[in-house]
Amino acid sequence: MGTKGKVIKCKAAIAWEADKPLCIEEVEVAPPKAHEVRVQIIATSVCHSDAHILHPQFKKALFPVILGHEGAGIVESVGPGVTEFKPGDKVIPLYTPQCKKCKFCLSPVTNFCAKLSQFKNPAVGQELMEDRTSRFTCKGKPVYHFMGTSTFSQYTVVSETNLAKIDDDANLQRVCLLGCGFSTGYGAAINVAKVTPGSTCAVFGLGGVGLSAVIGCKVSGASRIIAVDINNGKFAKAKALGATDCLNPRDLPKPTQEVIIEMTNGGVDFAFDCAGGSEAMKAALDCTTVGWGLCTLIGVAAGDKGLTISPVELIMGRTINGTIFGGWKGKDSIPKLVTDYKNKKFDLDILVTHTLSFDKINEAFDLMYQGKSIRTILTF
Amino acid sequence: MGTKGKVIKCKAAIAWEADKPLCIEEVEVAPPKAHEVRVQIIATSVCHSDAHILHPQFKKALFPVILGHEGAGIVESVGPGVTEFKPGDKVIPLYTPQCKKCKFCLSPVTNFCAKLSQFKNPAVGQELMEDRTSRFTCKGKPVYHFMGTSTFSQYTVVSETNLAKIDDDANLQRVCLLGCGFSTGYGAAINVAKVTPGSTCAVFGLGGVGLSAVIGCKVSGASRIIAVDINNGKFAKAKALGATDCLNPRDLPKPTQEVIIEMTNGGVDFAFDCAGGSEAMKAALDCTTVGWGLCTLIGVAAGDKGLTISPVELIMGRTINGTIFGGWKGKDSIPKLVTDYKNKKFDLDILVTHTLSFDKINEAFDLMYQGKSIRTILTF
Ligand SMILES: NC(=O)c1ccc[n+]([C@@H]2O[C@H](COP(=O)([O-])OP(=O)(O)OC[C@H]3O[C@@H](n4cnc5c(N)ncnc54)[C@H](O)[C@@H]3O)[C@@H](O)[C@H]2O)c1
Ligand SMILES: NC(=O)c1ccc[n+]([C@@H]2O[C@H](COP(=O)([O-])OP(=O)(O)OC[C@H]3O[C@@H](n4cnc5c(N)ncnc54)[C@H](O)[C@@H]3O)[C@@H](O)[C@H]2O)c1
Ligand SMILES: [Zn+2]
Ligand SMILES: [Zn+2]
Ligand SMILES: [Zn+2]
Ligand SMILES: [Zn+2]
Repeated sequence: MGTKGKVIKCKAAIAWEADKPLCIEEVEVAPPKAHEVRVQIIATSVCHSDAHILHPQFKKALFPVILGHEGAGIVESVGPGVTEFKPGDKVIPLYTPQCKKCKFCLSPVTNFCAKLSQFKNPAVGQELMEDRTSRFTCKGKPVYHFMGTSTFSQYTVVSETNLAKIDDDANLQRVCLLGCGFSTGYGAAINVAKVTPGSTCAVFGLGGVGLSAVIGCKVSGASRIIAVDINNGKFAKAKALGATDCLNPRDLPKPTQEVIIEMTNGGVDFAFDCAGGSEAMKAALDCTTVGWGLCTLIGVAAGDKGLTISPVELIMGRTINGTIFGGWKGKDSIPKLVTDYKNKKFDLDILVTHTLSFDKINEAFDLMYQGKSIRTILTF
Repeated sequence: MGTKGKVIKCKAAIAWEADKPLCIEEVEVAPPKAHEVRVQIIATSVCHSDAHILHPQFKKALFPVILGHEGAGIVESVGPGVTEFKPGDKVIPLYTPQCKKCKFCLSPVTNFCAKLSQFKNPAVGQELMEDRTSRFTCKGKPVYHFMGTSTFSQYTVVSETNLAKIDDDANLQRVCLLGCGFSTGYGAAINVAKVTPGSTCAVFGLGGVGLSAVIGCKVSGASRIIAVDINNGKFAKAKALGATDCLNPRDLPKPTQEVIIEMTNGGVDFAFDCAGGSEAMKAALDCTTVGWGLCTLIGVAAGDKGLTISPVELIMGRTINGTIFGGWKGKDSIPKLVTDYKNKKFDLDILVTHTLSFDKINEAFDLMYQGKSIRTILTF
């Protein structure tokens, strides 16, 4: 008995084509090859990046595909050469790999990994395993992986570079959020922007990522945190997490950046775009102070026309940067964040608005599209 | 006798309207008011920013105006309350003031000064003295100041915040370049980008600013300096100053950024746009490496459509910043740069391609437009 070395048949959510609901199907998950790990996913949540790929304007998606990149699970079996993991280990899949060998992994200043460079758009790459084949089959057809993680499946196969081992007593229904949303927003504030005590901050977009950026600003000692969303329903949580002011651009008589510049007598020290799209990006850049304002881009919007800047905006001393996964090197940092959560350094419960069975995954997407959820946890 | 307290009649170059040659005229220069200084300009050079203001697309200019912001001279007289300067002092006018009182001046991280904030476009602001009047009159009409400096006049009046005192033995025909071009490019590399030893750099635009950025990269120990210009005539100086490779985008079979990415196996650590315009800005950003590439914007082009970026370019770990005047706080730093020049820490002579009498100022502009000069020194 045991499943090691055998194909596993299990449930997965397949995206057969763009702009359509996912279909819960039975898939075949091949055993892990060399330096790969097969993981039983226990909990996964939905991040807005999963939705982008389904958007017809995105044009980068390969179908059929198993999405999902915010999950947590237990190692079922390991392929040849894997020494870092063993069956039974609790793990979080990493869409930003850490090979520990490339010039990026060897540098302390970035969490980028050269493994991502093979993909034109690394954010949605890793659509196959390193041998350029898939471990998923459905109705006789190979199914693409997504971001090296594909957590919308009861079992998934990931490269050993795309996996972090975490504490045996971790609550997988919460720490799955460390797989993307929480880590991204929180890390954007503390690692990438390096928010300073007493500083002023503005956060655009109060979904899972933006609220986590609010948490990061608060932990960093920001004296003022201006939270911006087009959905008033997001403000109560933002305030609970430390936002000092909440603004809805649709309710303002003039552009948000002008309001923020007036409120702060010249602009904030740090701004974060956690919404995506040119409107929010532009407002985030323009609401930062001359001299030293830093605008950190996190959001991505499908089919967006981008951010157009005049050099004059930057020569006055502004900086724009961006981050994938909040600057965390996954293998090194995610286990520590799991411990920090256990030690109540930050709250994840407040980000969880819904818990549903995996079969209701389309409901989780709808809750997100309707702005009713922050994060929905799906369990198998 | 003496001129103190009296109107001085002298020569100046007036820009009466956009897109026309300057006219050498007799102007009346009023005595300095409180906290102002009247300076006899001994040498001035022409920077491309003087030309932008004349461009009809710029639309920010006020006419008639006396341009010029790269000069050096001697204090003729001081207004009430001035204690930092006395007649006979050698000085360099500063288009980036240093009031030493505002929150920016009190911060070590920026050379911006709140005095600039009153101007919508600080780069071409300071068109009047602080009392909102001009000290220049020509043919009975008031004439606007420019950038708080107006060095294209034998005598000019500047605020005491817009002036740096330098060594008595300074060679004004050389250190006038510290008033803008040299300090901007050199400071962009050493203060703003903080180029690191062994790093790879790309510099777009090899005028006075770009060649000075090359000098800064070299002084910082860059291992590779890729110099880019659409004018092959600029490459000999770039090589003499430390450029390891020279590229002309017009001679390349594909976009410059792609060539640089191949040459450097993934992109440079630091890129500088010292040309201005969307083409050069885009190439400068895109030729930087993922992970930690930094693109510093310095150039400004009249009527340009700007730089359009996708957040995906930045979330992979790139940063864009910009600088005015190379990050130098003028009063603190320009005297030190004068000393560094005297101690041969860098060469200014190589940037001087022509020396002309002030009356030939339009020839100096033409030499710049034709790409034949780096800097032309004008003497009275
Ligand atoms: N860079 C990364 O590593 C990374 C990681 C995760 C998510 N993301 C991206 O971050 C963004 C946020 O993800 P999420 O899961 O929190 O999404 P979400 O849908 O839960 O939240 C987005 C929020 O932005 C708000 N919003 C939309 N347009 C706005 C505007 N113009 N101004 C202000 N608010 C606006 C929405 O009302 C919503 O509350 C998405 O674009 C996602 O793709 C990036
Ligand atoms: N930020 C600041 O504080 C500051 C200070 C000084 C000058 N500037 C700006 O910096 C720029 C350079 O000034 P300068 O005095 O050295 O000008 P310059 O005219 O002497 O030099 C510009 C150089 O750029 C080259 N060039 C033009 N288009 C190019 C392209 N697409 N690719 C590559 N090279 C190209 C030209 O051939 C020329 O050699 C100007 O835009 C100027 O306004 C900014
Ligand atoms: Zn995500
Ligand atoms: Zn790596
Ligand atoms: Zn200049
Ligand atoms: Zn100041």
